[in-house]
Amino acid sequence: MTETARPNSDAPAGAFDIAAKMVDGLPQPAGAWTPIPRFSFVGGNNDSPSVPVGGLTEAAMAALTKHGAELATYNLGGNPQGFAGLREFVAESLAANAHMPTSSEQVLVVSGSLQALDLVNTAFLRPGDVVIAEEATYGGMISKVARRGARCIGVELDDDGIVPEHLERLLDELAGAGTPPRFIYTIPTVQNPTGSVMPIGRRREILAIARHFGVPIFEDECYSDLQWTGERPPTLRALDCADSEGQSVVIYCGSFSKSIAPALRVGYIVADVPVVRQLMALKDDAGTGALEQLVLAEYAAAHFDDHVSQLRETLREKCAAMRHAVNTHMGALSRVAIKLGGPVQVSDPKGGIFVWLTFPPGTDTARYLAPAAERGIQFNEGAAWSVDPEWGARRMRLCFGSLSHQDISDGVAALAEVIAAN
Amino acid sequence: MTETARPNSDAPAGAFDIAAKMVDGLPQPAGAWTPIPRFSFVGGNNDSPSVPVGGLTEAAMAALTKHGAELATYNLGGNPQGFAGLREFVAESLAANAHMPTSSEQVLVVSGSLQALDLVNTAFLRPGDVVIAEEATYGGMISKVARRGARCIGVELDDDGIVPEHLERLLDELAGAGTPPRFIYTIPTVQNPTGSVMPIGRRREILAIARHFGVPIFEDECYSDLQWTGERPPTLRALDCADSEGQSVVIYCGSFSKSIAPALRVGYIVADVPVVRQLMALKDDAGTGALEQLVLAEYAAAHFDDHVSQLRETLREKCAAMRHAVNTHMGALSRVAIKLGGPVQVSDPKGGIFVWLTFPPGTDTARYLAPAAERGIQFNEGAAWSVDPEWGARRMRLCFGSLSHQDISDGVAALAEVIAAN
Repeated sequence: MTETARPNSDAPAGAFDIAAKMVDGLPQPAGAWTPIPRFSFVGGNNDSPSVPVGGLTEAAMAALTKHGAELATYNLGGNPQGFAGLREFVAESLAANAHMPTSSEQVLVVSGSLQALDLVNTAFLRPGDVVIAEEATYGGMISKVARRGARCIGVELDDDGIVPEHLERLLDELAGAGTPPRFIYTIPTVQNPTGSVMPIGRRREILAIARHFGVPIFEDECYSDLQWTGERPPTLRALDCADSEGQSVVIYCGSFSKSIAPALRVGYIVADVPVVRQLMALKDDAGTGALEQLVLAEYAAAHFDDHVSQLRETLREKCAAMRHAVNTHMGALSRVAIKLGGPVQVSDPKGGIFVWLTFPPGTDTARYLAPAAERGIQFNEGAAWSVDPEWGARRMRLCFGSLSHQDISDGVAALAEVIAAN
Repeated sequence: MTETARPNSDAPAGAFDIAAKMVDGLPQPAGAWTPIPRFSFVGGNNDSPSVPVGGLTEAAMAALTKHGAELATYNLGGNPQGFAGLREFVAESLAANAHMPTSSEQVLVVSGSLQALDLVNTAFLRPGDVVIAEEATYGGMISKVARRGARCIGVELDDDGIVPEHLERLLDELAGAGTPPRFIYTIPTVQNPTGSVMPIGRRREILAIARHFGVPIFEDECYSDLQWTGERPPTLRALDCADSEGQSVVIYCGSFSKSIAPALRVGYIVADVPVVRQLMALKDDAGTGALEQLVLAEYAAAHFDDHVSQLRETLREKCAAMRHAVNTHMGALSRVAIKLGGPVQVSDPKGGIFVWLTFPPGTDTARYLAPAAERGIQFNEGAAWSVDPEWGARRMRLCFGSLSHQDISDGVAALAEVIAAN
C-alpha cells in the first residue's frame, strides 16, 4: 500500500455507507410495506375464493409423487425451456382455444410474463430506442422500457384496439426520421386497460402494416383467457403463421397469473424456434420454479377450461357491479359529474379484471391519489397507464378482481366522495 | 405513407427474419436440448434420493390449506420482500447456524441466488467497471459481469480463501489507477470451486481491508449449509455487523438450491434495510414464486436441520468416492500421470458437491471436452471457472452430487481414458 497505513484487523476502520457506492440513476428505494387497504382497486389481483385450492393441492401431491426426486436436478433434468408437461399443455391449449397451432418446442416457460417483457426488451432494445405501444397500455411495460433508456411512442386506440391508419402514419414518420421502432407492443385481446378485443379483420390489418414496415410485434395475451364469451379470436401470431409458412414476425406471451393465480410466477413465450433459442440464451436464471410448473401442468391438464369458465362468470359479475357503481356514483347527475362539469365514462370491457374511466377534460386523476389513500382507496391514475401522461391524466384504471361486490360498491362510493370533495 | 404503397391486408407482404431485428452482441442462441449424459460432472445438481419428497408433499398440503386462497393476490397479499414465514425461517436459521443475528426485515427473498447476483450487479455495475473476484470462482458470475460490459479481476486464493496481502495490493493498485472495484465478490464458505472455508481470522482481515478501501463485499454463501462439520464460521456480514453498530458493508446471499433442491428457485439476500429496499426497487418481477416459498417455509421450519445433516453425510461419502476415483485413475503412476508428466491434484473440499483438479503445467483441460462428450462425460473446464482463463486452463471442476458411487467411479475412469488417449 502506497498512500495509506495497513489496516489493523483488530480495530477495523469504520463502516461506510454502502448505498453511496451504488450507481447513479437507480429507481427510488421501496418504501416500508403497508398492508393492502380495503378498497384496493390496483394490482391485478384476482378473486380469492376462486383459487382452486383443492385442485392445486391434489395436483401438488400427484406432481411431487411423480416428479419430486427430479427436483434434485436443475430444470428437473429436462430442457431449460421449461417442464415438458407444461409446455405441452400450453401448446395444446393455444391450439384449441386461440386458433394457434403450437408445438411445445415453440414454448419457453418464463417466471411470469414480466420476465417475457424483460427478455424481449433485452433482445431488441438499446438506450435511445423506440417502441410503439398502445396509447393506453400496461404501466409496467412503460416503466421497463424507460428503465433501459428507451421510450414508448403511443398509437391511438379505438373500440377495436390499435387504429391502423395511425399505426401506419407513425411507422412512416419514424422510418422517415431514421428511428424505426424496435417492435410494436400490443395487447389485442382484453386490452389493458381498455378491455377491448381486436377483431380479426383489424388483426390482419395490423399484421400487414407491421410486415410492410419490417417491424416485429410483441403480442401480450395475459388476459385473453378471461374474455367473457370464452371465444378467443385467433392470435396475431396465429394469423401471421398461417400466412408466412412458418416464419412469424410475432413473439407471443401469455401467463397463468390471471387464469389461475398471480402469486404463482409462471408465464410463457411462444415464438419461432430460433427466436425461442435466442431468448433462452438471455434467460440466465437456471430455470423457472419447477414446483410451480409441475403443479400447474398437473392441475391445468385436468381442470383448466372448467376453472377458467367459472372464473370468467365470477369476474363478469364483478365487472357489472363495478360499472353499476361507477355509473351510480360518477355518472350523469352524480355529485362527481356536477363537480367536474360532466359524467365519468366507464369502459365496457370484454373480459378481464379492470375498467377504464374517462373523466371530463381538465381533470387530473392523480390529484385524488393522496386523499383517496387516506380513505383506504387505491387506484391507478391514468398517467401511469398511458404512454403520454398528459393524455392519460383524466383517465383512471380500477381493478375489481379481488374485491367483494360490497367492497366494490362501497369503495366506488367512497372514491366518488373523495373526488367530489377535492 | 410517403414512399411506399399502402399494404393490402388481404395479401400481406412476406414475413421477415425477426432475429435479424435483434440488437448486436447477444450471446449465442441455445442449442437443441440433449438429455443429461450418464457421466455428467457439471451443473450443481444434487443427490436425487435425498430430495425429501414426502416432507415436501406434506408441506405442500399444509401450506396450500393455510395460504392457498392468498395466491389470488400478488406476493400473497404481503410484503414483496417475500413470504413472511420464509423470511422468518431464514433469519432464525442464520442466527442459529451462521452466528448472524438477522431480522426478517433484512431478508429479501429472490428467485434463486442468480437473481441476487443480477440485483447486486444492477445496483453497482456500469460498463467498464471492475469487480474483484476470487481467481477461481463461480463461472456464472464471471459471465454475468462480462455481459454487462464490466470485468472481474482475480484475487489469489490459498487453502484459507482470499490471500489478504494480494487483495490489499490489488485494491491499492486499482485505487492508484483510478478504477476502484465496485465490490468484492467472495464465496468464503465452501468456496466454489476450491471447497475451502475461510477461517475467522482471515475473515476479519478481509473485512478490515475492504472497509479501509471503502469497497463493499458481496458474500455468496450458497454452499455453506453443506460444510461437512455442520459448524459454519460466522459470516463476513455477521463479523462486520458486530463491529459496525448496524451499518454493514456486506451484502449476503444464500439459497435453498443446494440444501433442498436446485429446481426450486428460491434464494435470499440479507443486507441492511436501506440496501434491501433499494434492491427491492430493482426487483421488478412482481415477486418470487409464492408456492415454492410457502412449501419451503413449511418444510424448513420442521425439517431443515435434520435434512441438511443427512444430506451432508451422503455428499461427504460421494466426495470421498470422487477423490478416491481421481487419485486412482489420475494420481501418481496412473496412465494420465505418465501421459501428462505428473499426477493430477484433487482438492479436499470442506463441503459441497464438487472437487477442483489441478493438472500438470501445460495441460489445457478444455481440449478434452469434445472427446469426453463422445463418451457421455461432461465436466467444467477450468478456464470457465477462472477469472483468467489462461490461469484456469490446467484446472477442472467435477461435480459429484447427482451421480451414484458407481457412476462416479466409472465416469472418472472413463474420463481418465479420454485424457490418456488425447
